[in-house]
Amino acid sequence: MPRTLCSALPTTRTDSGSVTVEGWIHRRRQLATVTFVVLRDRSGVAQVVVTDPQVREQLSALPEETVVRVTGTPIGNTKAPGGVEIIEPAITPLSAPAEPPPVELWRPGLGVTLPTMLDHAAISWRHPTRQAVWRIAAASMAGFRRHLDEAGFTEVTTPKIVDQSTESGANVFALDYFGSTAYLAQSPQLYKQMLTGVFERVYEVGPVFRAEPHDTARHLAEYVSLDVEFGFIRDHRDVLGQLRDTLAAMIEAVREKAGAAVETVGAELPVVPERIPIIHFREALELVGAAPTEPDLAPEHERFLGTWAHERFNSDFLAVEGYPAVKRPFYTHPQPSDPRWTNSFDLLFRGLELVTGGQRLHNHADYLSALAARGADPAEYAPYLEAMRHGMPPHGGFAIGLARWVTRLIGADNIRYATLFPRDIHRLRP
Amino acid sequence: MPRTLCSALPTTRTDSGSVTVEGWIHRRRQLATVTFVVLRDRSGVAQVVVTDPQVREQLSALPEETVVRVTGTPIGNTKAPGGVEIIEPAITPLSAPAEPPPVELWRPGLGVTLPTMLDHAAISWRHPTRQAVWRIAAASMAGFRRHLDEAGFTEVTTPKIVDQSTESGANVFALDYFGSTAYLAQSPQLYKQMLTGVFERVYEVGPVFRAEPHDTARHLAEYVSLDVEFGFIRDHRDVLGQLRDTLAAMIEAVREKAGAAVETVGAELPVVPERIPIIHFREALELVGAAPTEPDLAPEHERFLGTWAHERFNSDFLAVEGYPAVKRPFYTHPQPSDPRWTNSFDLLFRGLELVTGGQRLHNHADYLSALAARGADPAEYAPYLEAMRHGMPPHGGFAIGLARWVTRLIGADNIRYATLFPRDIHRLRP
Repeated sequence: MPRTLCSALPTTRTDSGSVTVEGWIHRRRQLATVTFVVLRDRSGVAQVVVTDPQVREQLSALPEETVVRVTGTPIGNTKAPGGVEIIEPAITPLSAPAEPPPVELWRPGLGVTLPTMLDHAAISWRHPTRQAVWRIAAASMAGFRRHLDEAGFTEVTTPKIVDQSTESGANVFALDYFGSTAYLAQSPQLYKQMLTGVFERVYEVGPVFRAEPHDTARHLAEYVSLDVEFGFIRDHRDVLGQLRDTLAAMIEAVREKAGAAVETVGAELPVVPERIPIIHFREALELVGAAPTEPDLAPEHERFLGTWAHERFNSDFLAVEGYPAVKRPFYTHPQPSDPRWTNSFDLLFRGLELVTGGQRLHNHADYLSALAARGADPAEYAPYLEAMRHGMPPHGGFAIGLARWVTRLIGADNIRYATLFPRDIHRLRP
Repeated sequence: MPRTLCSALPTTRTDSGSVTVEGWIHRRRQLATVTFVVLRDRSGVAQVVVTDPQVREQLSALPEETVVRVTGTPIGNTKAPGGVEIIEPAITPLSAPAEPPPVELWRPGLGVTLPTMLDHAAISWRHPTRQAVWRIAAASMAGFRRHLDEAGFTEVTTPKIVDQSTESGANVFALDYFGSTAYLAQSPQLYKQMLTGVFERVYEVGPVFRAEPHDTARHLAEYVSLDVEFGFIRDHRDVLGQLRDTLAAMIEAVREKAGAAVETVGAELPVVPERIPIIHFREALELVGAAPTEPDLAPEHERFLGTWAHERFNSDFLAVEGYPAVKRPFYTHPQPSDPRWTNSFDLLFRGLELVTGGQRLHNHADYLSALAARGADPAEYAPYLEAMRHGMPPHGGFAIGLARWVTRLIGADNIRYATLFPRDIHRLRP
């Protein structure tokens, strides 16, 4: 008999009379005359009611997390999960009897410390509240791609083993590459720009690597970056507009594909305003009461601005544009009216930095000047500069850290909650 | 005036009278009284006809590959590409004048050696015949995901920095990880299995790394792997069935999203039979006239089998099942009727190995035996074995190398033609 998913069980007796479900024994309760089994599959759970003494005996040897096939009769029961339960079941084990898991999966909450959760990630992700977090991540990626595909972008995949660090030599992982030294890409920045010279509009979903020497709640040594770059823009505000549409599409996809997960974790999906409010970095400093020479915003400044944007514009998002040139990478386009500032921005989401983006330089001569001003050797960037030498459109882009996005969405206080198998200075397994 | 893509130019005079296109000067021909410009954008090319002496003068300072905006009047011309040309244009340069590119992009074919093409990848990918190859790759990825999303799979992203090699210590890149040694993942195999215990059905599109010490036309040090793993299967033939449907969906997406690219490169898209013909490894050896003790098929054997499958079944695809246990990794499920063989397969596409897949072990005790038989230490696999200890469904999966797939599809003789920025023992840039 073909398998039925738990979420698709008929709540009224069907003609055929019986159904087959398959999954994990999520919960087994052996009472005096009846055994209740909650079966878990990828779609949800279903209750199985066992009264046959022989089947109850069989079940007593099948602990929680054992994988089974259950064939029985579905009947409506408004008290059961999904409004249906399966009675008079025959049970076939599909795995050996499971040993008791290191974390209790059947309780409503996982109720373990973060290190325990991470140490046993392969098991703890089975918990419905954990699954829900990743379903939000997966839906976010799907929404990201769907929007960009529709907007004429081409998906690209760029090398993660590179011959130089993207922006600086700091926090880069080195590896032995057939006897010479190579590095793990800190971002696809240079490659996505080169490919903008080919396809005009590109995106990539892939891992990036930072040898973060600090153990913080916001940083990992490896994370998934949602990268976008496109040409024929006027300036960074076109980039911000595309970012706005991309985020709106991601939220829409989360709502559509992971609605139940949003409910499970109690996430409050933000509304993206038609136009994200923008403040210049210079004015942001003034607003938070910082010295006008400050080169960056501190976390407490960002929180203040988040509250301000919410009160002033009723917006969860605020773009801060014009970051000082001294704090931005060499490829950043200066603000034409005053080159102390740049055509770049940070996007704050609920008072925390979520995305960095902006316009890049596109003329070869400007790159040579920018590199010279930093004392960098153009020869190190030869293939990248070649693209600029032979005609590049005005262009820009942004990068969204997937885990950072999901962390904010679910209101978690540590990025490790939103990463399947996080990597940091202390953690290399599982 | 909003930008019009070259492919969307009206072939008849419009009410507004003029249009704006933006792109690269693909070709500039300066004749005695007229200058012809072929403009290239992401959608194709359009011809611009310039007779105004001042604009001709302006154009003489804008060499090929310079990026420009052109505003003019479209008129139908059946001889022009797309059946339309733009007359009486005003031209605005969007980049500095381009220097002559290292490869001639305007000729119908690129006509350079592979090393030259790769050395100047950021430029050579601009050629329409090269762009087309990547568009086929991008459409393949989109089709892969679309099919699996519809089939209830969850996209996952697994770490690329790992504490052990997946299958053996050979051909693995080592890196310094905060003072200890880590490795680059050779495949997401162990992680996708662990996540099958969570989501039942998972896929990942991501980079994998092999320190291939040989310079061959079929191998790279880094490539994109399309990985699938799912539970609740009967055996490897369910895996082959899912592979069949996935490939059919990828081909359908290539046809739908990259039809013009297929035409440009002259690829012949295969028909995937409803059921891919299957031959047992033992019979395959017999058929090719190899000794029955041979543990693997040689390339000439695969070619022979490809021809045989085409003649016998009119199929571009042939699955060889039952590969000898001695040649398969420890997690491979044995063939129940005879454990010398396995429930695994290789899929040949036009006589070349394209995909490896199969059923995996799913019970903890079987893993302990398999590891012991190979003298491997179970402690090294502790997090992975934990998933098996606590209830795993019968499961299996496969992995498709994206570049290998595209290489076969376009009939190229080197995998480097289908990789944006290939990495091998001799090549680490661009």
